[in-house]
Amino acid sequence: MSTIYQATASAPVNIAVIKYWGKRDTKLILPTNSSLSVTLDQDHLRSTTTSRADPSFERDQLWLNGKEDEIKAVGRLATCISEMKRLRKEYEIKTQMNQRYSFPQFHIASYNNFPTAAGLASSASGFAALVASLAQLYTLPASPSTLSLIARQGSGSACRSLFGGFVAWQMGSDPSGNDSLAVQVAPQEHWPQMHALICVVSDDKKGTSSTSGMQRTVETSPLLQHRIKYVVPERMEKISKAILERDFDTFAKITMADSNQFHAVALDTEPPIFYMNDVSRAIIALIVEYNRLSVEAGKGYKAAYTYDAGPNAVIYALEENIKEIVQLIVSYFPQRSGEFKDVLGLFGASSTDLNALAKIPEGFNGAVAKNFEVGAVKGLIHTRVGDGPRKLGGEESLLAENGLPKTLA
Amino acid sequence: MSTIYQATASAPVNIAVIKYWGKRDTKLILPTNSSLSVTLDQDHLRSTTTSRADPSFERDQLWLNGKEDEIKAVGRLATCISEMKRLRKEYEIKTQMNQRYSFPQFHIASYNNFPTAAGLASSASGFAALVASLAQLYTLPASPSTLSLIARQGSGSACRSLFGGFVAWQMGSDPSGNDSLAVQVAPQEHWPQMHALICVVSDDKKGTSSTSGMQRTVETSPLLQHRIKYVVPERMEKISKAILERDFDTFAKITMADSNQFHAVALDTEPPIFYMNDVSRAIIALIVEYNRLSVEAGKGYKAAYTYDAGPNAVIYALEENIKEIVQLIVSYFPQRSGEFKDVLGLFGASSTDLNALAKIPEGFNGAVAKNFEVGAVKGLIHTRVGDGPRKLGGEESLLAENGLPKTLA
Repeated sequence: MSTIYQATASAPVNIAVIKYWGKRDTKLILPTNSSLSVTLDQDHLRSTTTSRADPSFERDQLWLNGKEDEIKAVGRLATCISEMKRLRKEYEIKTQMNQRYSFPQFHIASYNNFPTAAGLASSASGFAALVASLAQLYTLPASPSTLSLIARQGSGSACRSLFGGFVAWQMGSDPSGNDSLAVQVAPQEHWPQMHALICVVSDDKKGTSSTSGMQRTVETSPLLQHRIKYVVPERMEKISKAILERDFDTFAKITMADSNQFHAVALDTEPPIFYMNDVSRAIIALIVEYNRLSVEAGKGYKAAYTYDAGPNAVIYALEENIKEIVQLIVSYFPQRSGEFKDVLGLFGASSTDLNALAKIPEGFNGAVAKNFEVGAVKGLIHTRVGDGPRKLGGEESLLAENGLPKTLA
Repeated sequence: MSTIYQATASAPVNIAVIKYWGKRDTKLILPTNSSLSVTLDQDHLRSTTTSRADPSFERDQLWLNGKEDEIKAVGRLATCISEMKRLRKEYEIKTQMNQRYSFPQFHIASYNNFPTAAGLASSASGFAALVASLAQLYTLPASPSTLSLIARQGSGSACRSLFGGFVAWQMGSDPSGNDSLAVQVAPQEHWPQMHALICVVSDDKKGTSSTSGMQRTVETSPLLQHRIKYVVPERMEKISKAILERDFDTFAKITMADSNQFHAVALDTEPPIFYMNDVSRAIIALIVEYNRLSVEAGKGYKAAYTYDAGPNAVIYALEENIKEIVQLIVSYFPQRSGEFKDVLGLFGASSTDLNALAKIPEGFNGAVAKNFEVGAVKGLIHTRVGDGPRKLGGEESLLAENGLPKTLA
């Protein structure tokens, strides 16, 4: 019986505060600007991947959420797998290793613990988990930054999910892409009070995919070049400093300005791209008014919205203010009862009727938004800054003994 | 009995295709960029103003739609009136005129024939009509460009309503503002096939006023400077050429790109400004798909949307395509019966049940927008390019013999 090598890893979701929008090389996935994100806690949102190498497998196969996903010869999955094989081979040669197993076939099973309907991009956590599990299987001494070079070729923003905490994707300048990688600005322990509230917004319009959307912006938006050249470099520097100094006020201002500007260049595209809808706009109006009150009280900004390529809001806030923000949001966006899982014990219960807790802060101008129906915001997810990829034990394997996903076995 | 001098004039609405957004001098109303508009037909939309000079009047007074509007000492109305008095005085001195009546008091009555609820800016046509009626009363030999310098100080875009046809507001460079004026790019007769369909969109959100909004953009948008410096000058040149060559395809592309970019810089403002809502977005999606079909058929763009500081769409199109566009719009936005006045005889009747005429072009991807309820688009106004201010006869006077508005008399 030949030895079977297997490894299971999980990786986190990350939500950018300086947005990635535009590629200078679509094959290598090299961005037109650097970006920066907060890694979210895997206790709540994660992708888990099990990779198994077995010479008896006929070919590389991958199952996503129990369903086989074709590994196209020239596709991004194939690129990541072959790049990992290349790393292993270099490692074998460098260490004059006897046991060579660079090129067996893989069976890979991946699973996201959040529903696709939540509208959260799963490609970042998915590719990070894939690369992390293969690195573990291969016992590579590669750093997260080195692995980020490979995850980047699966999905650009995946490179940022190789680290916990606060992570910069440095755009680099080398045509090979070898300097376009992720680095950690600060670990989660630096600022564990950074929490996030995801407002899952329903949408009746099929949005433009970010892959095609961002290239249309590169080709047609006159404003994008100015953003790339002048605005982002300065913001990267300032928000990194704000994170290191735990300066939430500055962090919030830059986060919101950059979300706005990303959607501005999307709108400056031909034809224009809209990701936010009237519900997204109403959440912005609530946060703007909430901050106005706080600034007036001499406390600076207390919340920062950011929107990716969809209508969902992610609201960053310090732990101490999250409860108040949840109460504000549900005042305008009533929730279906029992849907909110109070995993971080905001209200001292594991499941709560949020609507009964609705509360608008004193002095808040209630007219900035109208009251919406149940379902406009389909759900709220409370989470926080988290760690990077985790190595999981064999008992967490997604593959059964026969080499097929457990959900199929 | 002293002589009473009186004059009545009407002036048109104009809708910009290169947008004015930002002042470099808020007192003189000098813009940060040039702009260009199409003057709409006064047969459909107009402001009418009667001015009367009478030494027996106690003070300058103005009534707007029958309701007195205070003329504040340092306000825009007072500026326009005193600037007109200054022009008259210069004229009297220059011509060594005996009869001097620079400084009597005025009674002024102004009336818009379109409801405020239509969401159309009435300040442009209103200030243009005011200046035109005073120029007439004063028998000034001033050119429309000279008068535009004064209307501009009432409301920036009013300067463009001093001409019919296609009108540029040249931003100028003199700190005095003397070169920030309107010029005609082409008269209405040059391209009378240019029609417009105004879609009046309902909104449950009170928007940011354009006066305060544009200054917030000037102060906070990093992208605005790029627009001002590089984008607008090139677009002014290209769209002027397109108008002179009656090149609708180019006219449409630039018009839509500039509407998008104006809303992009509004969104790039802190806090962000949104004027378009989900209904506006859906109309854009319909026009984009309508043009895609037409381009595919080798016919180029057939429609151009543009949005001012509100959710209403103005769709420019050549006369021959308007009927098809109305039929498309009502397919998604059913109208209250009897509300559409078919003043230009599109359907060969003076009032029509538009919903029965709904029709989607063959090959149109119907899924680009959902079907809305009656009332989402509250009304449709079909109009076309028109002439500049008109001199009206005494029978059109808005002032009664006693010097008060007829509606009050």
